[in-house]
Amino acid sequence: MAQRRHPAGAGQRSGAARCQRPREDVNGVSAVSQTPVRVALLGAGTVGAAVARRLADRAEVFARRVGAPLELTGIAVRDLGRPRDLTGVLPGLLTDDPGALVDEVDIVVEVMGGIQPARGLIERALRAGADVVTANKQLLAQHGVELEALAGREGHGLEYEAAVVAAVPIMRTVRDALAGDEIRSIRGIVNGSTNYILDMVARQGVPFQDAVTQAGDLGYLEADPTEDLEGLDAAAKIVLLARAAWGGEVGMSDVQREGISGLTDADFENARGTGQVIKLIASAWRSGAPGAPRIEVAVRPTLVAADHPFAQTREGTNMVIIEADSAGSLRLSGAGAGGDETASAVLGDLINLARARVAARD
Amino acid sequence: MAQRRHPAGAGQRSGAARCQRPREDVNGVSAVSQTPVRVALLGAGTVGAAVARRLADRAEVFARRVGAPLELTGIAVRDLGRPRDLTGVLPGLLTDDPGALVDEVDIVVEVMGGIQPARGLIERALRAGADVVTANKQLLAQHGVELEALAGREGHGLEYEAAVVAAVPIMRTVRDALAGDEIRSIRGIVNGSTNYILDMVARQGVPFQDAVTQAGDLGYLEADPTEDLEGLDAAAKIVLLARAAWGGEVGMSDVQREGISGLTDADFENARGTGQVIKLIASAWRSGAPGAPRIEVAVRPTLVAADHPFAQTREGTNMVIIEADSAGSLRLSGAGAGGDETASAVLGDLINLARARVAARD
Repeated sequence: MAQRRHPAGAGQRSGAARCQRPREDVNGVSAVSQTPVRVALLGAGTVGAAVARRLADRAEVFARRVGAPLELTGIAVRDLGRPRDLTGVLPGLLTDDPGALVDEVDIVVEVMGGIQPARGLIERALRAGADVVTANKQLLAQHGVELEALAGREGHGLEYEAAVVAAVPIMRTVRDALAGDEIRSIRGIVNGSTNYILDMVARQGVPFQDAVTQAGDLGYLEADPTEDLEGLDAAAKIVLLARAAWGGEVGMSDVQREGISGLTDADFENARGTGQVIKLIASAWRSGAPGAPRIEVAVRPTLVAADHPFAQTREGTNMVIIEADSAGSLRLSGAGAGGDETASAVLGDLINLARARVAARD
Repeated sequence: MAQRRHPAGAGQRSGAARCQRPREDVNGVSAVSQTPVRVALLGAGTVGAAVARRLADRAEVFARRVGAPLELTGIAVRDLGRPRDLTGVLPGLLTDDPGALVDEVDIVVEVMGGIQPARGLIERALRAGADVVTANKQLLAQHGVELEALAGREGHGLEYEAAVVAAVPIMRTVRDALAGDEIRSIRGIVNGSTNYILDMVARQGVPFQDAVTQAGDLGYLEADPTEDLEGLDAAAKIVLLARAAWGGEVGMSDVQREGISGLTDADFENARGTGQVIKLIASAWRSGAPGAPRIEVAVRPTLVAADHPFAQTREGTNMVIIEADSAGSLRLSGAGAGGDETASAVLGDLINLARARVAARD
């Protein structure tokens, strides 16, 4: 829909207010009379079920913040029979047909994981006119460049704070807060499972292989622990952060990657002896000449001084340090994973997209 | 300008893509051919001059990120004769007439400080059709509710990340990242001057009054140090954070405030003896019944355990811990002040507002 270009003058609403609504609608306009914003949820595992429960029990608050009610039109799952905690959620929303759902909504929330059918559903949603929120780091690491290009062409949003360190607002910081700065590097502990293991060894003196076994028993590792232990999870996250910071098409194959599985008790002993701690650090930095910058990405077990903030990062906590030319050093930390924590990030993206849609109606 | 309401469907651009541009324009559309986004700068002190220099030396990068060139139309100052570092900035931009500037631009950046004439100029800018970026915490603490209401009525943005802990993205986190969550509390060290003093006493054993004198000599305190020492600076910041978190009209008079000027060397001795450290902590929290929530705000010298992250916060660094229902505990830290650091936050807000304006042209 072409519009005549005009400089914003008195009486013209700039694009900004549409995007920068206060948390509560200060005008007091009743949200009830507004056309709902329709939301489809793909996936109802730990994160998806938490999102659904929050949409139910925070419905009024969200409607006030968005300026219109959020209407969950359906929840697509693979296995209708699997027991789930959907307390407060309208019965009858579950379906095993995600395709029909994504054609008829304003915002699609993809928390099913995996490459397909998630990829196809996201593409279908964008083409059908919806914005998309996702937590799918592996899909984005592999196909995010194409998906963002598609979203750009279709004029819709693709948001994924939840894909990178749960509720810790790193994507928003890198992309938005530092939009007026130049990022030099991003380094951090971005995988809670491996940090839990390394922390157990360093602070409790548990032999390394026992720590790995205990972490598995406690449910900190996937059934196939490769993604965590080999640094693939951390690599996907640092790839997404590098793209957000510097654009470009950094991919998984660019990551200089080494996980923790090759570490030995001798390594930990040596670290302890030199007042250091081993941490799995994911990093991305700009190198090369100003005219020909290179982006480097790595995931590596790294020795850090025992009094460094990274060394103080315990159990499942994650921490990211961003260095920017003007801002200096910014440090963000919090839970690296968890159903509620990841749901918080999903809902944050959802509310922001919904607010923008409602504001665009004005 | 009324527009017929229609649900966004295939082919309709949702509001979201307008707000969520990637850092670099992936479509490769030449920014040079676009109508510039006109920017007026009010104030060229440490922060303002840094903003002007960055607009000059990052002009190409910013144009790519925004999708159009940013054109600095003028820099209003009180004293045309005062020496300033405006390296790279077009000569002839300085003026001592801010009123004329704000009538003819898209975005006004207010970094002059003080209540008047800053307040009048911001109101004039919003009525004339501009979005506003400001770092003016005292103005916002006293008149922010009315200014945000005016911005909302005029349909323009009012952004102030720079007013609260420089480049540490706390406003963006509270307002946007946690828009889908419920914030329980916000606590932090938000004044670098007093933290520098307290840190000098705790870690270097400098007698308290000597530490205050040294901080003054090093330029860490204003000529009138009351604002820092009496916790007024911290109070203004926690007021802004409380409003962003829970809406409402919390004001300076609601802050249970005690600065550091009443502390004695005996207090610091007692702290040390019990393995604790005294920090000036600003806090905001929700109390009361669910149906009748109260917002409490306070600034107080507080004993913290020596191994608490607050106790580890050194010199001019600031740290804020946000507790939210789903996200859990999020911690953000970085430089609390500084020309470049504050300029980073100003420029971040500026780029985001400019991006939204350009996207709204489509």
